[in-house]
Amino acid sequence: MNAPESTAPNQQTVAAFQGERGAFSEQAVRQYFGPGVLAAPCRDFDRLFEAVVAGAADAAIVPIENTLAGSIIKNYDLLLEHDVTITGEVVLRVVHNLIGLPGAEVDQIRRVYSHPVALAQCERFLREHPQMEAVAAYDTAGSVKLMVEAGRRDEAAIAGEMAARAWRAQIMMAGIESDPQNFTRFVVITRPDHTPPTPGGRGVTGELKTSLVFRTAHRPGGLHTALAAFAERSVNLTKIESRPIPGRPWEYSFYLDFIGDPADQPIRQALERLIASAESVRILGTYPRAETPDPKDVPA
Amino acid sequence: MNAPESTAPNQQTVAAFQGERGAFSEQAVRQYFGPGVLAAPCRDFDRLFEAVVAGAADAAIVPIENTLAGSIIKNYDLLLEHDVTITGEVVLRVVHNLIGLPGAEVDQIRRVYSHPVALAQCERFLREHPQMEAVAAYDTAGSVKLMVEAGRRDEAAIAGEMAARAWRAQIMMAGIESDPQNFTRFVVITRPDHTPPTPGGRGVTGELKTSLVFRTAHRPGGLHTALAAFAERSVNLTKIESRPIPGRPWEYSFYLDFIGDPADQPIRQALERLIASAESVRILGTYPRAETPDPKDVPA
Repeated sequence: MNAPESTAPNQQTVAAFQGERGAFSEQAVRQYFGPGVLAAPCRDFDRLFEAVVAGAADAAIVPIENTLAGSIIKNYDLLLEHDVTITGEVVLRVVHNLIGLPGAEVDQIRRVYSHPVALAQCERFLREHPQMEAVAAYDTAGSVKLMVEAGRRDEAAIAGEMAARAWRAQIMMAGIESDPQNFTRFVVITRPDHTPPTPGGRGVTGELKTSLVFRTAHRPGGLHTALAAFAERSVNLTKIESRPIPGRPWEYSFYLDFIGDPADQPIRQALERLIASAESVRILGTYPRAETPDPKDVPA
Repeated sequence: MNAPESTAPNQQTVAAFQGERGAFSEQAVRQYFGPGVLAAPCRDFDRLFEAVVAGAADAAIVPIENTLAGSIIKNYDLLLEHDVTITGEVVLRVVHNLIGLPGAEVDQIRRVYSHPVALAQCERFLREHPQMEAVAAYDTAGSVKLMVEAGRRDEAAIAGEMAARAWRAQIMMAGIESDPQNFTRFVVITRPDHTPPTPGGRGVTGELKTSLVFRTAHRPGGLHTALAAFAERSVNLTKIESRPIPGRPWEYSFYLDFIGDPADQPIRQALERLIASAESVRILGTYPRAETPDPKDVPA
């Protein structure tokens, strides 16, 4: 891949994602950037961040949180380790499908492959189909690929609809997840010196959101003092996440997301107070807040 | 296993742990309860909690947090799902060892099995021994068991010293972890109506610690209002962890640990204020705070 220094309007945006073709992350890439984007698969999250830092991709889409499984902590750690900026977010409704070979029938399926989290999220469907043995695989879209390569009509995979299209397989049953309130939030990362690629414009609200990470001074009430800066100005905190600091047992970095723009007076004052009380503060980015799709809005 | 209703002094305490014989969790059981305990292995964390709830064990030792890897979120969720009380905690210094068959030599080892987290924590050792291929296994102590059963002198496992003893294998190199600031904190759980088994008395400080979980009302500053109750009374928060609430996207349960006893006035007042402002509060337990061992104190 080449490394464009900025994205001119007539130049194609290269957005990297983790996983096989058709992964939920690729769905998020297309939902955010629109159909014209060049989506580039990466094997793991380390390579995903490196593709952005090295300039091989204009941006990467990084899953950060699922409403059922929780935070993807590996990616919180990678945000801290790399010199990248968050320039956007996207919320994807996670719809799981039973995917088989073209012509395969549900009654014939004896084995179902998917990522353990996806299998767990389809627990009710699997309980209702006891003839199907659930087998853990490394990836949702990757399990479709493996199933197609094996060519067995008694095997199926659980993955997103784009994985079925990518590997020319068939959606046998759509929306088999137990809980429809299943969303994954992704952040869009770029290099700090890189003009952010323009989003396709779907699924974004008019509000701005800011992400930062800080360490408190280790004393009673340190976390409270840090949060007071925001609460006194009625800033809406949407997420807090803590991660251990290696080499300093029982001390933590805190990740905060809040609604607001550091260019505005109350947010700027809150940040100044946080910086005065905390050991360190790093702003990860300010970006348009994503809309959460209606859970009833299942794509066909 | 029988289910004693309370532990008389002359009755042996049954403490369950997750993993194979010799797991770090079994080391924690013995560190906390002393040598006389009957340590009962469980296959997974769900069974561990069920053993306590059903009365098959007096107590269970549950890993909750590692200073390098972070929180074991599965166990935070299980604490919320089960009617159990936290009656103690124990902090274990995690020492990784290269373990082989008796008589095997380091130069001959070509393959090393362990849990992916343990392999990652011995990354420097593995980089310095490129002839050894790292292979992910389901468990640290379980990889010692597999290695012994395979009977190959060119294979080794990475695990704690108790795993070497449990499976009659040999510690070839001790303390091969990259970072010695490697501790796991376990909580001791019992049924609420069950007299807590008496600890062996090692590794416990004179301070009391309390764990609780709460949900804030979803409005700006909700988390801050909850924490203010503690900060205004200079209560020392030692840990905060958030977990998503299933079915309520972008809303969270917060787990708090703090130093103090609800029987004391300032803590009682802080709790009353928290209960008034939060949607729900559940006290998980009050128990003696564990000491963190000296990282230089490597058992031979």
